[in-house]
Amino acid sequence: MIGVSGTLVRGGTSKCWLFDITDVHGRGASLEDVLLAAFGSQDHSQIDGVGGATSTTSKAAIISHSYESGVDIDYTFAQVGVGVNEVEWGSNCGNCGTAVGLYAVQSGLVRPRGEQTTVRMRNTNTGSRIDAVVDTPGGRFTPSGNATIPGVASPGVAVGLEFLDPVGSTTDALLPSGAAVDDFTLSEGAAHATLVDAGAPAALFDAEALGLTGAETVAEFGAALPSLLGLRHRAGVHMGLAAPGGPVSHAVPKFGVVGAPRDYTATDGTRIAAADYDISVRMASMHAPHPAIGLTSTVAVAAAATVQGSTVHAHAKARDGEIRLGTPAGVVSARLVLDGERLTGVRLNRSARVIARADIFVPRAERVPVALP
Amino acid sequence: MIGVSGTLVRGGTSKCWLFDITDVHGRGASLEDVLLAAFGSQDHSQIDGVGGATSTTSKAAIISHSYESGVDIDYTFAQVGVGVNEVEWGSNCGNCGTAVGLYAVQSGLVRPRGEQTTVRMRNTNTGSRIDAVVDTPGGRFTPSGNATIPGVASPGVAVGLEFLDPVGSTTDALLPSGAAVDDFTLSEGAAHATLVDAGAPAALFDAEALGLTGAETVAEFGAALPSLLGLRHRAGVHMGLAAPGGPVSHAVPKFGVVGAPRDYTATDGTRIAAADYDISVRMASMHAPHPAIGLTSTVAVAAAATVQGSTVHAHAKARDGEIRLGTPAGVVSARLVLDGERLTGVRLNRSARVIARADIFVPRAERVPVALP
Repeated sequence: MIGVSGTLVRGGTSKCWLFDITDVHGRGASLEDVLLAAFGSQDHSQIDGVGGATSTTSKAAIISHSYESGVDIDYTFAQVGVGVNEVEWGSNCGNCGTAVGLYAVQSGLVRPRGEQTTVRMRNTNTGSRIDAVVDTPGGRFTPSGNATIPGVASPGVAVGLEFLDPVGSTTDALLPSGAAVDDFTLSEGAAHATLVDAGAPAALFDAEALGLTGAETVAEFGAALPSLLGLRHRAGVHMGLAAPGGPVSHAVPKFGVVGAPRDYTATDGTRIAAADYDISVRMASMHAPHPAIGLTSTVAVAAAATVQGSTVHAHAKARDGEIRLGTPAGVVSARLVLDGERLTGVRLNRSARVIARADIFVPRAERVPVALP
Repeated sequence: MIGVSGTLVRGGTSKCWLFDITDVHGRGASLEDVLLAAFGSQDHSQIDGVGGATSTTSKAAIISHSYESGVDIDYTFAQVGVGVNEVEWGSNCGNCGTAVGLYAVQSGLVRPRGEQTTVRMRNTNTGSRIDAVVDTPGGRFTPSGNATIPGVASPGVAVGLEFLDPVGSTTDALLPSGAAVDDFTLSEGAAHATLVDAGAPAALFDAEALGLTGAETVAEFGAALPSLLGLRHRAGVHMGLAAPGGPVSHAVPKFGVVGAPRDYTATDGTRIAAADYDISVRMASMHAPHPAIGLTSTVAVAAAATVQGSTVHAHAKARDGEIRLGTPAGVVSARLVLDGERLTGVRLNRSARVIARADIFVPRAERVPVALP
């Protein structure tokens, strides 16, 4: 048994356990083994650990000072397995980035400066630069605030998140296949997707060609999802993320469907009118329907909106510098920062809250379970 | 924002947050408000708190020294709402009692005595006396162990749990209605239940009369459950737990179906033969199918087995002093302690593990959320 200090922070619609690098390195076990045992990943219920047994509540980030000029904090995101002893390191998580921004101010890693404090972050999984702009009224850290976001009833501290130079962080290109739209033949007809790399690599399929609208409930999209995962695999290979026939990571490409705005009912029962948003989006996360949308996927959709003829561009209402995504949890807005035609940033409004500070007791991996008589 | 110290302990198949009474009383907010805010109960996902968003992971207990002679510890169990700002105080939870036993030794409330240390507990919700017998090899507290139980892959410290004088703790009678079996008319035919009060008040329906077997998967029993909740309500009224037409607590009566042993597949894929257990049981918890069985329900089933002609007695294989329950998670054994015909105790083998010690940051209830622009 070893003790590991960690901080539980809600960032947007995720719960993330944040660890200072000095608290988890050199503990006589690999970082991966420490996370899996701490979260209780062996059980689907994560009943023997601090994990929350869903993809949005089984997340961690390891945080350190950055030695890079102009960067305050490095963080490494870990998607910790649920019912499987595996950690995915292949992608970033913007919600955890939001949590890291608040934590950096709380823990003194970054000193508050004025009414809002910018935390300059590097995500080490993808190399992405992200700024978190944390509300610090009166030049001080506050643990709680009044900011709310779609998908979370409880308020928190307002955190603006800007993905800097989000294009091509994995494949060096906005459109890894070189095309605005790629066609995938099906047994009947064809599916059309824009394969985009911004925030994270993402495959954004036209909903209509798949018999969907993009405005499904979480349950409806969940029912359709199993038959669509083959398309995700083919898109991953086509983007160069995997060899033909080889395995494609659970984390990337992000996968979803987009469609024209239409009236729908959000998960909390709110009626949302077609006029109130610009594009319908339903995303998957770890092969399950996402209850809202991941932030890196939001960046990908925003970037695809700048591409003439993309699946997003084809359906999205034209607007100036902002795109509003209709998700199951409600409408999420993204602000586009452009240098001429080039997308140099995507800004999102988020909230975060520090939930708990804990000493986690981590069982050693070498124990051999023995059944009770 | 207030800070509250708590300890997260797995007890059996539940995760429980345990609080010393001095850490949660007199904090400028009611205990109920503190728990609801700490757990993030406002959201169905409990995304803004330490709750796990399921009935087995949204539990707390408040612990104090007992002033009663022959009792070491008093604990009060709280079933904290998920997506609803309500705490149920109406029942005990044996799994949390298991956690409390381990915590009492860890925290020094009870000093280890020899290879096994008995923690004498009073559950204040029901008045029940329970002994937890905690493995303390070499006369010392150990944070981990090799004991496993059905429904949890991870091992923990062996804890034996004995419910003392479990009969009639709520209604003063083993059979509150006075009958071994009560009949409830349905639109077609009738349902038969044994209404028993031991461990907790429980309504144990004969599965067959409801078109079930008692050996359903969790999903199958979950599909049948909505149509059965009317029977639970009628049983609660018949036991005197509510006025006719009045509301029945979500917590009690415990509700389930029993049937003859038959081969079935447990949730983890293990095949279980009819010969390996004595009675099939499928229970509900907070209106959802229980993944295994609650311990107070286990006591109720064991007590019903001692009643000639009960729904359990009718199906259970006759055995001497032990009954093995076939649950979705596997086989759970209970040992009966009898004084002549009178049931004086029920003993269960459990395991527990201390997961984390935390300072939880609890938002104050008076904050008014304001939506972000």
